[in-house]
Amino acid sequence: MSKKPLILVTNDDGITAPGIRTLIKVMNSIGDVIVVAPDSPQSGMGHAITVNDTLFCREEHIDDGPQREYSTSGTPADCVKLAKHEILNRTPDLCVSGINHGSNASINVIYSGTMSAAIEAGIEGIPAIGFSLCDYSWDAKFDAYESYVKQITEQVLTHGLKKGTVLNVNFPKLNKKDIKGIKICRQAISNWVEKFDKRQNPHGHDYYWLTGEFVNLDQGNNTDQWALENGYVSIVPTQFDLTAYDVINDLKSWKLND
Amino acid sequence: MSKKPLILVTNDDGITAPGIRTLIKVMNSIGDVIVVAPDSPQSGMGHAITVNDTLFCREEHIDDGPQREYSTSGTPADCVKLAKHEILNRTPDLCVSGINHGSNASINVIYSGTMSAAIEAGIEGIPAIGFSLCDYSWDAKFDAYESYVKQITEQVLTHGLKKGTVLNVNFPKLNKKDIKGIKICRQAISNWVEKFDKRQNPHGHDYYWLTGEFVNLDQGNNTDQWALENGYVSIVPTQFDLTAYDVINDLKSWKLND
Repeated sequence: MSKKPLILVTNDDGITAPGIRTLIKVMNSIGDVIVVAPDSPQSGMGHAITVNDTLFCREEHIDDGPQREYSTSGTPADCVKLAKHEILNRTPDLCVSGINHGSNASINVIYSGTMSAAIEAGIEGIPAIGFSLCDYSWDAKFDAYESYVKQITEQVLTHGLKKGTVLNVNFPKLNKKDIKGIKICRQAISNWVEKFDKRQNPHGHDYYWLTGEFVNLDQGNNTDQWALENGYVSIVPTQFDLTAYDVINDLKSWKLND
Repeated sequence: MSKKPLILVTNDDGITAPGIRTLIKVMNSIGDVIVVAPDSPQSGMGHAITVNDTLFCREEHIDDGPQREYSTSGTPADCVKLAKHEILNRTPDLCVSGINHGSNASINVIYSGTMSAAIEAGIEGIPAIGFSLCDYSWDAKFDAYESYVKQITEQVLTHGLKKGTVLNVNFPKLNKKDIKGIKICRQAISNWVEKFDKRQNPHGHDYYWLTGEFVNLDQGNNTDQWALENGYVSIVPTQFDLTAYDVINDLKSWKLND
């Protein structure tokens, strides 16, 4: 039996995306790799799971290499569930998701299929990292980030991650020589100001396209958004216990018949 | 101009679900109500948003009453965005989501369309509450919970909610006289152990249905799961800053070239 770590690779841009191909290449240098990823792009799927529809899954051969690969008709979270409970006969030692074509820093973590796969793995007790690049282009250059991906992954395998947490790693869109290093950060407070592009279909019905503008409301210099805008790779330790502990006592003073 | 609060009502079970009809009825007794909800069930959609597809939206008349209603082809998070940025000409004073047919306590908050609508509202600066009933039945009886919905809503309108937090309210499946009161709680540590029901379609291709069993790993008596199992309504203050602050310093000791 191999002593190399078993690494599950997934993403939300789909199994053929350049970002996941880079991630697979780096992971092949670290461990035994199994890929279970969506058969088509799933961006903006948040933590969706497929409860009211069937899931298809088939073995794929996309790039040469030692990895085994499967595509599914499901969401990123579905891929992690299928990998752990159906395809593998043991729990992987690590799950990596990405490299996403586009930022998942700050509030984007909430909408992110990439991070939902990492969080799903975390919920299932698998140390997990989501990697994203602040470049939405399909032709984005991922080579510059390979050494960072490898270094961060090896540190997670060495130290483990605290139960209940996963890592949200984002890369600035820069040449390798211009990246200043890595910052451990908090999630910036931010939101999207939506604009709906209203159109009419050929049958006279109105419809909309969701567009919007990202607004960073956070002046802190310890946020992921600050790090990325200042040339650093950002790492935010991310949890899925959403309890706002500091508010519990306030609520206990409310007039509720308890 | 009315001095009554403007209340946005949404859900993830679809605009015709009995749970949202109950919520609309209670909200009509508190404020001016606008309903923007999915035209079909969206359970398990997590915080999905529709970025790669069109959104349809149309006015509806379902029940009599003073409320204005719109159905959309989008997810619960889409509904909140459409309501705020396209349908309304001002920010609502409150957003309520539900009443969901099924629990959104403990880890279910992560997969919940109901809570994603509340969280989306919170991100947009609107105080928000997600209501759910621990009964998946379409014919669940919601009457028993009306007074709790009203009481909690009025307390939120009175006190406001801390920026960056929303409420996750769950009701136990009990007759009114058997409900012991309300508990302010933390999110229980729990997960789903998935089982995939593997089948073959008429063309000989394997497919899966996702099923699973909920496992509560948390022995605490201050969790939402404990409250619900012991006859209480649970309220968890819920945040969307996912930073695991207590892990930041640990990570800073790692060997990362920063």
